[in-house]
Amino acid sequence: MIYSDRSVGKQDEDTGIKKGKLTREMILEKAAALFNTRGYFGASMSDLMAATGLEKGGIYNHFASKDELALEAFDYAVKINGRIVIGELSKHVHAVDKLTAFVTAFGSMAGHSPIPGGCPLLNSAIECDDAHPEMKERVQKAINKVLNGLEGIISNGIATGEVRKDVDAAAEARVIFTTIEGGIMLSRLLDDAKIMNTVSEHLFRHIRLLGS
Amino acid sequence: MIYSDRSVGKQDEDTGIKKGKLTREMILEKAAALFNTRGYFGASMSDLMAATGLEKGGIYNHFASKDELALEAFDYAVKINGRIVIGELSKHVHAVDKLTAFVTAFGSMAGHSPIPGGCPLLNSAIECDDAHPEMKERVQKAINKVLNGLEGIISNGIATGEVRKDVDAAAEARVIFTTIEGGIMLSRLLDDAKIMNTVSEHLFRHIRLLGS
Repeated sequence: MIYSDRSVGKQDEDTGIKKGKLTREMILEKAAALFNTRGYFGASMSDLMAATGLEKGGIYNHFASKDELALEAFDYAVKINGRIVIGELSKHVHAVDKLTAFVTAFGSMAGHSPIPGGCPLLNSAIECDDAHPEMKERVQKAINKVLNGLEGIISNGIATGEVRKDVDAAAEARVIFTTIEGGIMLSRLLDDAKIMNTVSEHLFRHIRLLGS
Repeated sequence: MIYSDRSVGKQDEDTGIKKGKLTREMILEKAAALFNTRGYFGASMSDLMAATGLEKGGIYNHFASKDELALEAFDYAVKINGRIVIGELSKHVHAVDKLTAFVTAFGSMAGHSPIPGGCPLLNSAIECDDAHPEMKERVQKAINKVLNGLEGIISNGIATGEVRKDVDAAAEARVIFTTIEGGIMLSRLLDDAKIMNTVSEHLFRHIRLLGS
């Protein structure tokens, strides 16, 4: 009986932990969408309660503060988007094809993004550059990771002879990233998907010219 | 005596109107800087009171609501920046030189912008695209004016033979504008002026290729 009781207790505990994890994940998912559409300062605790269907205490059970939730929701959004982009890149071998796939995958956030509200890197960068140092640092790290990834693709391409030797990998990584982000901003503001197509076509031509 | 009294009364009235106008202008200037750094949702009435040195009533004397103030502060910021950019453009005649001057003047907002906080078009676009329809409409109009201006320079350039006949003026206006805005975002986030230089150099090369 003792063993049996223990076993049931363990099962309840496991179910409790599993349920807690699911709730935490649900909060992160809803919060990521809310912060990405309304912004960190624009989304209130009441908005978060309405979106999650939880009381304030239910949210604070999992996150110590709105700030902690915002930082983790940002990481969550970056992880979800990152997986999609990396998945698309992994389908290609040639550096020029990888860069082209990056533009398509990343630029798709101008339309229906997995986390509603467009690109969380862009949104958080703009909101936090002057107003939220901790979030700014988080966004800097995430963007530097993307820039390093792009730079790595170009550098490898130069090493394998797929990309011209005179190409400045760091500069091109920055040009590609900033052009996409500007395109996402304008497409979303003017509700016009054709703008992202125009900007992507421009980048496709530019990327082809980097090839050797 | 009656005339003299009237004359003094008129003078007081004039001084009162002038003082009111100065106060209104001061509120707009401080509010534009505050909204451009902290965002519309991030800047509170207390922040506005601290920045202007006025009580709430002193601000509401001139603006019916925080919303009205935000919309007028946006117009104020756009007017100040617009004057600088148009001033720089007017120094040039050739379409390619005008486009190059646009990149330099507009891109300078990555550093010390006349309205602190970077580009108000970019900041307001990101904050309001999903969260503030009235401001979104205001930003759309302002950005469309810039895009039409750029498109006009390119179209004129095609007409005068300064720009290649096969150039798509509307597409190029969008590419130039989005690339600059992306550059401003990344420069400000990473506190690195070199990024705006990299992006500008890329655009200078691209613009030279538009020339016939």
